[in-house]
Amino acid sequence: MRPVITAFEASPDRGRGQARDMRVRWALEEVGQPYDVRLLSFGEMKEAAHLALQPFGQVPTYEEGGLVLFETGAIVLHVAGRRAGLLPADAGGRARAVAWMFAALNTVEPPIVEREQAGYAERDAPWYKARLPLLDGRIRQRLDALSARLAAADWLDGAFSAGDLMMVSVLRRLEGSGMLETYPNLAAYVARAEARPAYGRAFAAQLAVFRAASDGGAGPGSSQT
Amino acid sequence: MRPVITAFEASPDRGRGQARDMRVRWALEEVGQPYDVRLLSFGEMKEAAHLALQPFGQVPTYEEGGLVLFETGAIVLHVAGRRAGLLPADAGGRARAVAWMFAALNTVEPPIVEREQAGYAERDAPWYKARLPLLDGRIRQRLDALSARLAAADWLDGAFSAGDLMMVSVLRRLEGSGMLETYPNLAAYVARAEARPAYGRAFAAQLAVFRAASDGGAGPGSSQT
Repeated sequence: MRPVITAFEASPDRGRGQARDMRVRWALEEVGQPYDVRLLSFGEMKEAAHLALQPFGQVPTYEEGGLVLFETGAIVLHVAGRRAGLLPADAGGRARAVAWMFAALNTVEPPIVEREQAGYAERDAPWYKARLPLLDGRIRQRLDALSARLAAADWLDGAFSAGDLMMVSVLRRLEGSGMLETYPNLAAYVARAEARPAYGRAFAAQLAVFRAASDGGAGPGSSQT
Repeated sequence: MRPVITAFEASPDRGRGQARDMRVRWALEEVGQPYDVRLLSFGEMKEAAHLALQPFGQVPTYEEGGLVLFETGAIVLHVAGRRAGLLPADAGGRARAVAWMFAALNTVEPPIVEREQAGYAERDAPWYKARLPLLDGRIRQRLDALSARLAAADWLDGAFSAGDLMMVSVLRRLEGSGMLETYPNLAAYVARAEARPAYGRAFAAQLAVFRAASDGGAGPGSSQT
């Protein structure tokens, strides 16, 4: 059964791999699971047919036979549980990898999203600049702790896992802010993950979708890995 | 093996069950797993001994033999995987319950935390009131979608699951804001969960810790369920 994921027809990040389908593509590539992609416009994401799959009107979703999943954390964990490559063999190691997934999504990502949202929604507000140190401080508090824990290790807990995949995906949202560069071990951690062949294949696949859309066509109805 | 969790010695929420140990206590009660509690002061949470267990210096943690976990999502999922009561028997149902856990923590909770943080950190700022509609709007966007999906059902996907436990825990952070009351089905959903005996036992246990601390003593070094 070849799973089908959904992704933006024309990603607002212009192919930089920041849209959340990148996380799922990367996981599928790490475990060697071929997949299909169904592209959606912004309008289609808010229609009843998609809301039946994703109640919050977002991408990606994951369909596999009768199973429908949303939330990248849940999709990546499901993919990781089906084939080897993203979770350790022992139960304790698996539970710790899952802890890093939740840490990425519930502890590290929220202040990063908060800063992004200020840039979108409040850039012209009179308080925008005055609030930036507060927003940056919240991110740095998390990065300080993460950098201290990673120390000189390659990955967060032994071999590369779904926890690293999710943490790196979250840290990549800081690209262009200059913040990551002040933590050399975290910058090297992200670069190490981006050098993985599975990451490269996933990145190329999402970039191809964006390029097809920006070439003026409607883009392919589906792409394959 | 009786697990040990950590919790605030004197919770800043004054026993309203908003601290995150409540989520873990509730899960342990739902599956009938006895546990011990080790209480920590704010100072102790930032010391090296605790940072070795929880890199971000927070509570709760979960220790069981040699296994150490942090992040309530990971702890609740681990607890749910060990004993019946929080996850469906079929693999698809389990994956969907996990999706609701991630939805609670990565999609619904962040805008609620953002609003709380504004109340703590920016209440005296000249822009505080002007930003409130923006913050409320972000929360309502999520509640609109959640309310539409829940509709007239008792729980999010079949029987009560770890997904409901986490979603209700997140929605409870809106207590006192008046926002939840404008979604009758969500308010009833939270009340339905709070009426569960396991919720009641967990709530009483965390309240007892707060009362012991506020009675002027250092509180018990550990409490048991």
